[in-house]
Amino acid sequence: MLDNEDTIVALATPAGVGAISVIRISGPLSISSVDSILTGKKKLTDASSHSIHYGTIDDDKEIVDDVLVSVFRKPNSYTGEDSVEISTHGNPLITQKIIELLIKIDGVRIAEPGEFTKRAFLNNRIDLSQAEAVLDIINSRTDASLRGSRNQLDGLLSAKVNELREMLVNTSSFIELELDFAEEDIELIDNTELINRIDKIISEIDKLLSTYTFGRVLRDGVNVAIVGQPNVGKSSLLNYILKESRAIVSEIPGTTRDIIREDVTIDGILFRMYDTAGIRTSDDEIEKEGVIRSRNAVKNSDIILYIGDVNLLFPEDLFNELLGLNKPEHILKVLNKIDLKNDTSTGADVLISAKTGEGINTLFESMKNRVFKNSDYSEQSAIVSNIRHYNCLKNAKESLINAKKSSLGKMSGEFISVDLRTAENNLSEIIGTVTTDDILNNIFSKFCIGK
Amino acid sequence: MLDNEDTIVALATPAGVGAISVIRISGPLSISSVDSILTGKKKLTDASSHSIHYGTIDDDKEIVDDVLVSVFRKPNSYTGEDSVEISTHGNPLITQKIIELLIKIDGVRIAEPGEFTKRAFLNNRIDLSQAEAVLDIINSRTDASLRGSRNQLDGLLSAKVNELREMLVNTSSFIELELDFAEEDIELIDNTELINRIDKIISEIDKLLSTYTFGRVLRDGVNVAIVGQPNVGKSSLLNYILKESRAIVSEIPGTTRDIIREDVTIDGILFRMYDTAGIRTSDDEIEKEGVIRSRNAVKNSDIILYIGDVNLLFPEDLFNELLGLNKPEHILKVLNKIDLKNDTSTGADVLISAKTGEGINTLFESMKNRVFKNSDYSEQSAIVSNIRHYNCLKNAKESLINAKKSSLGKMSGEFISVDLRTAENNLSEIIGTVTTDDILNNIFSKFCIGK
Repeated sequence: MLDNEDTIVALATPAGVGAISVIRISGPLSISSVDSILTGKKKLTDASSHSIHYGTIDDDKEIVDDVLVSVFRKPNSYTGEDSVEISTHGNPLITQKIIELLIKIDGVRIAEPGEFTKRAFLNNRIDLSQAEAVLDIINSRTDASLRGSRNQLDGLLSAKVNELREMLVNTSSFIELELDFAEEDIELIDNTELINRIDKIISEIDKLLSTYTFGRVLRDGVNVAIVGQPNVGKSSLLNYILKESRAIVSEIPGTTRDIIREDVTIDGILFRMYDTAGIRTSDDEIEKEGVIRSRNAVKNSDIILYIGDVNLLFPEDLFNELLGLNKPEHILKVLNKIDLKNDTSTGADVLISAKTGEGINTLFESMKNRVFKNSDYSEQSAIVSNIRHYNCLKNAKESLINAKKSSLGKMSGEFISVDLRTAENNLSEIIGTVTTDDILNNIFSKFCIGK
Repeated sequence: MLDNEDTIVALATPAGVGAISVIRISGPLSISSVDSILTGKKKLTDASSHSIHYGTIDDDKEIVDDVLVSVFRKPNSYTGEDSVEISTHGNPLITQKIIELLIKIDGVRIAEPGEFTKRAFLNNRIDLSQAEAVLDIINSRTDASLRGSRNQLDGLLSAKVNELREMLVNTSSFIELELDFAEEDIELIDNTELINRIDKIISEIDKLLSTYTFGRVLRDGVNVAIVGQPNVGKSSLLNYILKESRAIVSEIPGTTRDIIREDVTIDGILFRMYDTAGIRTSDDEIEKEGVIRSRNAVKNSDIILYIGDVNLLFPEDLFNELLGLNKPEHILKVLNKIDLKNDTSTGADVLISAKTGEGINTLFESMKNRVFKNSDYSEQSAIVSNIRHYNCLKNAKESLINAKKSSLGKMSGEFISVDLRTAENNLSEIIGTVTTDDILNNIFSKFCIGK
């Protein structure tokens, strides 16, 4: 099942030209295969773990490169297997040639995407949620996102999930024991206590579920729609923000730009700013398309900046339109052009001038508050940022609600037991103690080769 | 003078996202500075050279990343100084943060381009021509070019230059000794012997100089101009070659494309194919520009493929035009369209059909022969591929010719001695035993940061 009979090899550093590149090899033949193409002072088979050796990689007596080779012996490696890292001059021709030499050896092949991390998981070096965190760490584009993934790699979510699993196992084992001794009619846990325990676990799961919005925002960024009548200054505001937030995050290639989107980071949080042209209905075919896109942007936003200006204020009909698309607490009324007329009695949440910059910092604070609101976030608490984990938790909660119903209805322990076991499995899926090939393939196929 | 009081730090792997990235630190504070931001099992100051240590890099108690740290103790490192390499998750946010943490430390700063290699040179780990080979190895785009740079890094050129220097020093020390004892009129080396020795060194330098065309071609590629009347099949030939040579080398960004150029590799050698539209004079202003460019392409070519076809053959006037621009031995007469009429009595060097592909392999062989012709190249002989080395050798040769003239004219030993010393200095410049800040800056500024 482990499928780690093979020795795998891949370039581990970003592709391209640089000072050095690193090739990673893992598996039973890693040390001997590198030995067979390396000329150095001593054989790697005699080298101790975590030691570095200078040598040349030779192809038919011709030097391919002089390299530094790092040896890691199982289980003290990233994968938990014998591993070697070859540090070469940073030229793709060299790394390609060395990889070609290695895969000529029987039992050595190119690694699949994420296969090193998959092996780390299969060899119990990390659990599944930690493996997923490795991918998130590599792909993080902001400090906040990096911090969230770090939190997960450090095992905060895993610890919490394990705690809940233990509570579940304890509870269900009582019930199963009762079932084993059904004829003797022993009661090991009374019904009230059972329901209390289930409630406790549900409430803990609820707490985790509630971190998801925040966790997703940490990981993927905050969607912000900028909405307003023509000429209230939507674009000037966006331009001002782009200028102010020094770190403009470049777009990921391949993202479709349905409407104008600019990514900015404010205090380490990624905000994806959508400049909606108009969300009002139109007869014009092309405008209609724009209306649909703008509405979708508003629907999917975590924050809607409803921009009014000192003359137009905030027309009710547009506000109602927004309320039809998203929750009221997501809407922030922003009054622009206060450099022209400073009237505070407008019902606005924030007063700004995209011209002078007045109030922009207050706007940033308000935007951050909307994100952090309702999140008991501290650096030390578990956060759910992955939709897979969220769904596992939701499924666990449903099973627990069923178990609770059965308990309230004083139904047979068998029913309760099945639901508790299902909930436990759902939790186990998060950390991968219960998993399927499909789940694993789906997770690791998203990795790059070499990780 | 060494300017290596500072500890320097830089990203050593290509920029971008990948499985791992490596940060390189070198200098007296390298080990202690990393110690100050690392939490691990033991202090790096207690670690032995060439050992690897797991730990976390912390910023104000928050984990930035978990890393592997490699320790190298002077003089057994790339630079010859104490050095550390930090292997992180391959996210630019992480490497940036770690570099920022390190340069906050007094005495640690970002490395200049090529500064690690410059220190390796200043600390006598490698000589100057080897340092230049490091850059060439990284930038090599073909196997042949890589092999040439490898040859240079392995010290074949250095060894040859040192051999010549020694011959020079031996000879000039005799003359200088004679000068010291001028009043006693002792002759330590007779004039014939002196001239013989100088001739021997000149002939050795000539051998090296003669490798330059080949060396440059190895390093930078072979310039090929495709010339011929309209409709003889210049473009079809180019297209066929592009299709045949599987590895199409992508263009270096920033190269100006004066005329159509396609880079192809044939058996590991880079050929830069210029499709010249026309080299004949014209009255049309725009065409005139094209004529000038085509003529330049022909002038600068190592090989000119003069394409004729079975009907037009090879018009004398165009051939004479080519002879006015380049050497006859560079011209290869290629008769195209032999699928239409196979007539071997045409004075062609190669017969091809760009339509059926007949003769194309013979064409490739002929092209390679033109490159390798007159080159006593073997894997084990020194090759000059760098214009700086070529110029140093040429200067040395000139000084030696002067010294020979003085010897033939029986002039005072002082004249001869000065010229021999100049020649020796010229040779020393190649390997950097004699050098200036200007030469060093010029060389290392071409490196990337981190090398």
